[in-house]
Amino acid sequence: MDYDRFFHDALETLHRERRYRVFVTLERDAARFPHAVWHSPDGPRDVVMWCTNDYLGMGRHPDVIEAMAATARRMGVGAGGTRNIAGTSEPIVALECALADLHGKESALVFTSGYVSNETGIATIARLLPDCLILSDADNHNSMIEGVRRSGAEKKIFRHNDLEHLEDLLRSAGRERPKLIVFESVYSMDGDVSPIHAICDLADRYGAMTYIDEVHAVGLYGERGAGYAEEVGALDRLDVIEATLAKGFGCVGGYIASRRAVIDAVRSNAPGFIFTTAMPPAVAAAALASVTYLKGGIEERRRHRTQVGRTKASLAAAGIPVKPGPTHIVPVMVGDPELAKAASDLLLAEHGIYVQPINYPTVPRGTERLRVTPTPFHDDGLIEALTEALIAVWRKLDLPFATRAAAA
Amino acid sequence: MDYDRFFHDALETLHRERRYRVFVTLERDAARFPHAVWHSPDGPRDVVMWCTNDYLGMGRHPDVIEAMAATARRMGVGAGGTRNIAGTSEPIVALECALADLHGKESALVFTSGYVSNETGIATIARLLPDCLILSDADNHNSMIEGVRRSGAEKKIFRHNDLEHLEDLLRSAGRERPKLIVFESVYSMDGDVSPIHAICDLADRYGAMTYIDEVHAVGLYGERGAGYAEEVGALDRLDVIEATLAKGFGCVGGYIASRRAVIDAVRSNAPGFIFTTAMPPAVAAAALASVTYLKGGIEERRRHRTQVGRTKASLAAAGIPVKPGPTHIVPVMVGDPELAKAASDLLLAEHGIYVQPINYPTVPRGTERLRVTPTPFHDDGLIEALTEALIAVWRKLDLPFATRAAAA
Repeated sequence: MDYDRFFHDALETLHRERRYRVFVTLERDAARFPHAVWHSPDGPRDVVMWCTNDYLGMGRHPDVIEAMAATARRMGVGAGGTRNIAGTSEPIVALECALADLHGKESALVFTSGYVSNETGIATIARLLPDCLILSDADNHNSMIEGVRRSGAEKKIFRHNDLEHLEDLLRSAGRERPKLIVFESVYSMDGDVSPIHAICDLADRYGAMTYIDEVHAVGLYGERGAGYAEEVGALDRLDVIEATLAKGFGCVGGYIASRRAVIDAVRSNAPGFIFTTAMPPAVAAAALASVTYLKGGIEERRRHRTQVGRTKASLAAAGIPVKPGPTHIVPVMVGDPELAKAASDLLLAEHGIYVQPINYPTVPRGTERLRVTPTPFHDDGLIEALTEALIAVWRKLDLPFATRAAAA
Repeated sequence: MDYDRFFHDALETLHRERRYRVFVTLERDAARFPHAVWHSPDGPRDVVMWCTNDYLGMGRHPDVIEAMAATARRMGVGAGGTRNIAGTSEPIVALECALADLHGKESALVFTSGYVSNETGIATIARLLPDCLILSDADNHNSMIEGVRRSGAEKKIFRHNDLEHLEDLLRSAGRERPKLIVFESVYSMDGDVSPIHAICDLADRYGAMTYIDEVHAVGLYGERGAGYAEEVGALDRLDVIEATLAKGFGCVGGYIASRRAVIDAVRSNAPGFIFTTAMPPAVAAAALASVTYLKGGIEERRRHRTQVGRTKASLAAAGIPVKPGPTHIVPVMVGDPELAKAASDLLLAEHGIYVQPINYPTVPRGTERLRVTPTPFHDDGLIEALTEALIAVWRKLDLPFATRAAAA
């Protein structure tokens, strides 16, 4: 086996299939968010980020930054060990209390990332339950799919948001068999939401546990920013709520919140939790500051909705094909991978606007898109500039404009 | 299925089997490392950490702290997205360059943790290679075991550091079949090291790739702190070097370094890399400061070895049973889970010394221990206090003292 040759050929294939990705290097600027400096081939250039998942700009909030800086000075940078061996710090304990309180649950557990939360959280819960059947939404994120796989449990995929399909699967499993329904609240690529109450009704009827991923909703929805389940008054109906500290809260890390016994079981059995260095105190302190702030962040959430609404309206009025949906995610549909990439490249090079194309396998072929995420800091002037840039790009690439009716 | 009852019973079982863990909450103190404040049931108490994996105390180094604080102020706290979507920052790119340089490799790739590096790195490499056979050391860390599992590849476990066994397995696989040898340089629980050159000789002879985990060695060994492979002059013989930014470098995160095509293949195919939020710029900047500093950290490494040697000598002279070994890890053998726990509890409660017990399944039954990790900041006074405390605990628990000869 010629390993060098093999890996060289594998790369050639990626290039040939146009799946080779070049990461755009950005220098974020806390003082000028959502502006950043793009390290372009021709040197540094000012750009506006229109695809950040720092949805509320909390990563640049002075309270959050100051919590990180002050805690790093006081306690140092790293945790120094796993949670069990020298890595449980006072800030991470306080953060877990704040997260449990946020979701109205008895307990919460922090992981190094939302990805790890899902992967090791789902796997551990399903593995503990004897003969567990997992019912998993077809559009679930890769981290949930990996968690389902690693559980070793039998799984059945129900068609995205299809309650009848889910009910059929639940019914045929029988009431007594342990069942775990795994789904998201806000789906990241289409920006649509799941029927949480209806799914919980089915869970009640057929005796299933519910595990919801709120990574694209926490901070943004609900009276205190607990997510979409809070928005629709379903917090107390869900068994396990998983979310991230990296998007709405602007930091890094993930967590689950649930009853104390469930959290303790995961804490005691999840390899991805037990055998890894704990979250640094400075990161936990920053996340705690963000969660605490956003519990009262009604103004941020209001402003966010306003600017999202204005962005959607502005693009629709210009005939840019926006996929309609109830959330802050604004999918601008292109429908072709090369054109989506070309549109993204033109926006960056000619308009100083950074929006990555979303291609297969992240979305189905034929639904390639630009995924636009307005924050409260994308003001009306930036929205206008985005609209004009998209019009120019659409014309240059001869992309079809939508009729106003279709985009409304 | 009564889920509440089930999880409640699962916890009862943990308690009954004495496997229920209570995490000790510590407030690290950057100014007084390795001292920390223990949030004890009776209120805050000063303790000395003797089991931190912040092996060189780099987490409290002013350069490292300042890099985190300054970068957080400049760029904010979080990365704001995956590496591909808005999350590639200038500090993370610089860090990857520094790590490639450190290990003398063409390229490096940073992950959210060392755990994830192994899990998704091993799985991705082995999955790409057609019909790959993984040869895995029996003492490999859980993160490597999970990576091997997730690859779906056939695996054969070779007895710990047993070259004959490894050679048998390689030989019977045949020269042409792709093979990946997965092993560590420094094994964390015994503090022993692997025969890197001899393993590389076998890899050459039988046409295998080598993947080494250096998490307990980077920063600590080698001229520039590149790890044990550098210490023994084997850096250029290894195909993939995996390590952590959380132990010797005092921060958080993990990475692999290798040839460009291998790194690019992992970058393009590893789900645990692609679908997760990138390392925050402030963390990357702190890690970069630590790696850069330790490239010249000869004095830190010298002082570390001195204090490790003094610790071992002091404990041995007192008849405390230290398992001999060539590294900085000082296993104090107890041989019973209850007694190891009792010794740890006594050290904390009566002597203000924090060392967690290491029990099954982390180590085999009958080899339960206290894992002591002296840093350069554990001065002679602290070593003396540790020795006296261990003597007192050994007497109180009626644990057997070693003869000097046995412990030397």
